[in-house]
Amino acid sequence: MTSQSAPSPATATGGLQIYDTTLRDGAQGEGMALSVADKLAIARHLDDLGVGFIEGGWPGALPKDTEFFRRARDELRLRNAVLVAFGATRKPEVRAERDPQVRALLDAETPAVCLVAKSHVRHVHEALRTTLAENLAMIRDTVEFFRAEGRRVFLDAEHFFDGYAADADYAVECVRTAVEAGAEVVVLCDTNGGMLPWRIADVVHDVAERTGAPLGIHCHDDTGCAVANTLAAVQAGVRQVQGVVNGYGERCGNANLITVVANLELKMATPVLPAGRLAELGRISHAVAEIANQPPRANQPYVGLSAFAHKAGLHASAIKVSPDLYQHIDPALVGNDMRMLVSEMAGRASVELKSRELGFDLSGDRETVSRIVERVKELEARGFMFEAADASFELLLREELDDVPARFFDLESWRVIVERRPDGEVVSEATVKVVAKGERIVATAEGNGPVNALDRALRQALERLYPQLGELELVDYKVRILDGSHGTGAVTRVLIETSDGETEWTTIGVDENVISASWQALADAYCYGLLRDLSGVERSAGAVQAAAMDSPEAR
Amino acid sequence: MTSQSAPSPATATGGLQIYDTTLRDGAQGEGMALSVADKLAIARHLDDLGVGFIEGGWPGALPKDTEFFRRARDELRLRNAVLVAFGATRKPEVRAERDPQVRALLDAETPAVCLVAKSHVRHVHEALRTTLAENLAMIRDTVEFFRAEGRRVFLDAEHFFDGYAADADYAVECVRTAVEAGAEVVVLCDTNGGMLPWRIADVVHDVAERTGAPLGIHCHDDTGCAVANTLAAVQAGVRQVQGVVNGYGERCGNANLITVVANLELKMATPVLPAGRLAELGRISHAVAEIANQPPRANQPYVGLSAFAHKAGLHASAIKVSPDLYQHIDPALVGNDMRMLVSEMAGRASVELKSRELGFDLSGDRETVSRIVERVKELEARGFMFEAADASFELLLREELDDVPARFFDLESWRVIVERRPDGEVVSEATVKVVAKGERIVATAEGNGPVNALDRALRQALERLYPQLGELELVDYKVRILDGSHGTGAVTRVLIETSDGETEWTTIGVDENVISASWQALADAYCYGLLRDLSGVERSAGAVQAAAMDSPEAR
Repeated sequence: MTSQSAPSPATATGGLQIYDTTLRDGAQGEGMALSVADKLAIARHLDDLGVGFIEGGWPGALPKDTEFFRRARDELRLRNAVLVAFGATRKPEVRAERDPQVRALLDAETPAVCLVAKSHVRHVHEALRTTLAENLAMIRDTVEFFRAEGRRVFLDAEHFFDGYAADADYAVECVRTAVEAGAEVVVLCDTNGGMLPWRIADVVHDVAERTGAPLGIHCHDDTGCAVANTLAAVQAGVRQVQGVVNGYGERCGNANLITVVANLELKMATPVLPAGRLAELGRISHAVAEIANQPPRANQPYVGLSAFAHKAGLHASAIKVSPDLYQHIDPALVGNDMRMLVSEMAGRASVELKSRELGFDLSGDRETVSRIVERVKELEARGFMFEAADASFELLLREELDDVPARFFDLESWRVIVERRPDGEVVSEATVKVVAKGERIVATAEGNGPVNALDRALRQALERLYPQLGELELVDYKVRILDGSHGTGAVTRVLIETSDGETEWTTIGVDENVISASWQALADAYCYGLLRDLSGVERSAGAVQAAAMDSPEAR
Repeated sequence: MTSQSAPSPATATGGLQIYDTTLRDGAQGEGMALSVADKLAIARHLDDLGVGFIEGGWPGALPKDTEFFRRARDELRLRNAVLVAFGATRKPEVRAERDPQVRALLDAETPAVCLVAKSHVRHVHEALRTTLAENLAMIRDTVEFFRAEGRRVFLDAEHFFDGYAADADYAVECVRTAVEAGAEVVVLCDTNGGMLPWRIADVVHDVAERTGAPLGIHCHDDTGCAVANTLAAVQAGVRQVQGVVNGYGERCGNANLITVVANLELKMATPVLPAGRLAELGRISHAVAEIANQPPRANQPYVGLSAFAHKAGLHASAIKVSPDLYQHIDPALVGNDMRMLVSEMAGRASVELKSRELGFDLSGDRETVSRIVERVKELEARGFMFEAADASFELLLREELDDVPARFFDLESWRVIVERRPDGEVVSEATVKVVAKGERIVATAEGNGPVNALDRALRQALERLYPQLGELELVDYKVRILDGSHGTGAVTRVLIETSDGETEWTTIGVDENVISASWQALADAYCYGLLRDLSGVERSAGAVQAAAMDSPEAR
């Protein structure tokens, strides 16, 4: 029935459950638009981080989510997390098994479901337009239905805190009904996000006392207190916390799961991730931002670029001697780094570390390290970002080490023409002129856009000499405009992900011209592919990344 | 001596003091660079909002701040706020009146000063390199010096919470010394930002009990809890809260004063602003962002553009009937507004609501609404996203209502050529052929990229006939590749933000060809600009937003 079997450490030990809803509630954020492929990629990162539960979407309500669960069944191999499908209790006056929305939820074939239910008397009357008794029956029936089908059931009690204020007895009755029907956890939701921590704590205490139910918490950030509200609920005894990576979500966003997890582990002595995963927090926060195409927030607690940045000057030496006096934690614990703002990012240590990761020991070669640090600094100042483009970094590294086996091709020129004709048809055509293996080649190709045309032309030019290029496929193409303040004159960063069917790698290009930036990333992508093929680069960035996907424990 | 006389309501009534440090601690944020003129402008906004105290900077330490206080004396006429200059306690083994830094602080001639002092034993030893007794003497002497000069004195006890953890008795002794010497409030600072609310509350309670001192609180957001920590301290009895507008500041920023004030007034029944000023919160938050040249954060609690935005669909009709069920406060209280997002799940209700927002009443016209809903659905299925492109939605709406006053121009064709020449130079050139006011125009322009070239060519073609286009500027350009699974053949969504100096609007284009998508957004941007100019579109999305900035009361 499902693609997972091993329970997460948290669920196995009965500890606090970490329940991620980036793919469902986070996806509701303004400007968020995740494709099915994006959702699968994010799910893999969440599993890699070690969350207990991944809520994947609302099958039946959104066609894209139905598709996600179908593909998840075939393609997702989760190591840590349990996949959860979200849905609502049955409609009023309809048997659960006859409700198409309930069927769609069942058909998602996940080991667990999360049912949203009303617990606020006015919402029952005004939004649901039914009786209080019928709402309780809806909760009971739907929970029992999924339990009978062998599913684990969580219940999201929507607008719970407002409902408790309106009619505490009824809100509590909803919780009791769900638990009696077999719900594993009843999640109290501050749906409108208007609560403050002490109110959350008081209500959680009272509900726990009156029902004995295992409770969860789901907060929104409308008072700027979503993280504190979540932690207050943990202090008050909840067993599950729901949140969203980087705090994406409707209005002001959901509780930021990255911050919550770091606070739990580092401030509240509550381990919630498998051993060793906390240091992946920064990497995974950035990877999810990248996939969601959201600019990473520099001042994000724990993982932001500025989170441990110090304006140097007066205190620089003091900070160097006693960093613990000026930082609330050691940034390495969450995969971050102290940054002194006099200099740019890249330091010797990180270049050495990264090189070792790629199989090059530079510890004895101060001069080469300095040269690479300088070059990386210069490129990053122009908008490059090598943390997202390991393959381009490896090419740079090999070039500096004179380790590139051969130049596969030299560019003479390229030209792209995009034309919208009077009949409305748009055609794109590219010509490249290259020299490879001593031969000058001119090739022209059409494409459905300028970059696609360029890709085809380059492929056509080289494929006779390098037939292995036939294996390569561009699987993702991302564009980000840096420094938006200059409109279309801003600098463009392009990331291209390429696959040879075995593994994938990412290359980068930066230029004020989007086509030029795309060319750089494209040329790097082909170079890296040829290099892999030539030398069977076992320990390359791409290979390490792919291995990590398959087996997070192996590292 | 000073430019102020009337005390703020808070100081007059003995209520909770609101102390803003945007100009001092906020200015330490990465990427913040405030000129003296910026600081004066922000100070006027803060006074207008009605904060009790404005900390203007550190005279002596920063030349710009010395200059600020000089000009403030001549130019600032504060009605509500007291201006405060920030400085440190005297150096070890130096008499206060001989310490140049103390003199500079005195010379700022403000009615109040805030002195930062050590209260952590290790900071005294390792950073100050003096004895615990001498540090106490430094506190006592410096406070007494400024009291003798007739100044009100606040003391910022730096690293207080860490210091309390290291040696509570000494930390408390620092507080006691300051109060005995005449400090009006001793502000407990979570300088490294590592605290959680209950810890803050416990420490404030203990210090208050042991010293009886009037206390203040100063928090940073390194655990994502700065707002909650501040409120917890208020609950525990502090008399002063320090914060920064929009939460700017070093690392993860300071406590966001906008959020704190809204929570105090609306959630904790603690009035802290003069009557009627709370509704200015949104306007002032945006004005400060504008002056500080920081992009406004759409998901900022209370005042963000998305803070009361609802994805329509299922719940749109329910929200219309009972907005209080779906919003934690009435957004008008803080000068904000409910926004319905026309999205994927767009239904009739949300289109009706959105249209009314734009000044069109469609409630009687079922057929038109159906037609618009169908068209939006069809476009959104292709990758359009109108929630982020109000102007494109308005153009669509007007087209369906036959309300477009005129077609400003008809496109015949365009062509873009991007070429990388053998010498490495990349050139972009665009040609557009349009018909406008009965005239066929062909124009060619170069640009630093294909879209920039297209923008220039279109502008060149139309500017003679529509000179008002000279006012328009493209201020932001965003590209998102949808469904990354097809590599460079994927669909591209382009968002363009345009300004006419008064207001800004966003348009959208979607196509598998990035140039074509950009063209669509560009053409819409120009159309909307011309439409605004032509009809003085008073009730358009942009105009409503601009009006809101100028006069929220007028709505």
